Amino acid sequence: MTIEHSSAVPLYAQLESEITTRIQNGDFPPNSRLPSEDELVEEYSVSRTTVRNAVQNLLKKGLVEIRRGKGTFVTSPRIVQELTGLTGFVEDMAALGRKASAKWLDHELLAADETVAEQLACPIGTEVMCIRRIRLSDGVPLSFDITYLPYELGRQIVSHDLEVEPIFTLLETRYDTPLIEAEYRLQAISADQAIADALSVSAGSPVFLIERTSYSRDHQPVDFERLYYRGDHIRFTTRLARRVPGAA
Amino acid sequence: MTIEHSSAVPLYAQLESEITTRIQNGDFPPNSRLPSEDELVEEYSVSRTTVRNAVQNLLKKGLVEIRRGKGTFVTSPRIVQELTGLTGFVEDMAALGRKASAKWLDHELLAADETVAEQLACPIGTEVMCIRRIRLSDGVPLSFDITYLPYELGRQIVSHDLEVEPIFTLLETRYDTPLIEAEYRLQAISADQAIADALSVSAGSPVFLIERTSYSRDHQPVDFERLYYRGDHIRFTTRLARRVPGAA
Repeated sequence: MTIEHSSAVPLYAQLESEITTRIQNGDFPPNSRLPSEDELVEEYSVSRTTVRNAVQNLLKKGLVEIRRGKGTFVTSPRIVQELTGLTGFVEDMAALGRKASAKWLDHELLAADETVAEQLACPIGTEVMCIRRIRLSDGVPLSFDITYLPYELGRQIVSHDLEVEPIFTLLETRYDTPLIEAEYRLQAISADQAIADALSVSAGSPVFLIERTSYSRDHQPVDFERLYYRGDHIRFTTRLARRVPGAA
Repeated sequence: MTIEHSSAVPLYAQLESEITTRIQNGDFPPNSRLPSEDELVEEYSVSRTTVRNAVQNLLKKGLVEIRRGKGTFVTSPRIVQELTGLTGFVEDMAALGRKASAKWLDHELLAADETVAEQLACPIGTEVMCIRRIRLSDGVPLSFDITYLPYELGRQIVSHDLEVEPIFTLLETRYDTPLIEAEYRLQAISADQAIADALSVSAGSPVFLIERTSYSRDHQPVDFERLYYRGDHIRFTTRLARRVPGAA
């Protein structure tokens, strides 16, 4: 495709569309450097302003990113994951045709702080099991997961190989703890150093944080998690019906 | 409250809980500087390590933040908003007992780029109305909204005072365009300079981006929005039922 100077579509929009196509068809693969402004000006016979406007829009859409001192690079496409039911990481990746794996960092018994105590419905200071794992999708770190389980359940869960067996599956099939539903709290935060290290990103990078409390029978909370997702790697989708507040 | 050295609850957890209470009861108000490490060590007769661990946890929870060169400050509490139905900003704030207002930055006719064309189901290059507004909650900028409307609808909508009249209400009550449902795409991103300026934050600050396409009758898309929420000011909540992929 060439840029049509006679088209009603602005030149920058044509160039943006053209580069998008070349990213999508693999001509400009993920993590490759985008051609420089000079190269794009020459290749498409457009002005520098046109190139800048096109690249600006690609930046806004997250298709490319500036790496300081290195140039403009094609980003990895985001994983698009439905947020419509309570599902575990392994299930989510399987639904997307991706291979899930886990790196088990550590686990320890902790005294529940105010938040953990509230979420697991136990007194502050109660011993709970805390499990830290990095979850990978096709080998790339996608999520840093901190899981808090009630003492008795947690003690049993950590006897399994948590790099292989999903906690949800263990709860449901081995420990007679069916998961019924969960409360989700969603935030955008900046990675602190610990999260950044776990996710192999720079401190300050955007993180999609899901705090999730899963309930079993009788609304008994059995699993409280903080799931820190790499912001540049994930997009969640859902569909909601119109609700007019106060309407009959 | 004083710190109980004989308690089974670790000292840092007690101190964390104490400071949390003082933030919540207004003793340490939003945007005030937290007492220094020295001051906390003296006031509570605990070690510097205890103070650091407590403050570290408050940072993780977002109750306080470090402002470079200035110290540790109490953050504004996040607005907790349900993400369970298609609702507009004014409706959301009303449900929380907050006052919604809007600053109308500008509007213009644009040629639809690939994304806008796909979302509004029109050919690339079709003229669409683009409206930029800052949405405020109790006077604080909470969201930078870019709205794309089909040409005919957009032309009519911008004849109203969009600092006063919500677009959803106009569509539904004036233009025979009932909203039925919407697709949501949720991401954590870093604010670029334009978003940062609109939200009165620093470039690079975390932003909760909602891209939302709302549909009217016959699954006709009528409104595509990019809603850039201040990450430090908002938390979305939802509740999802267990869904086991592939289960009978």
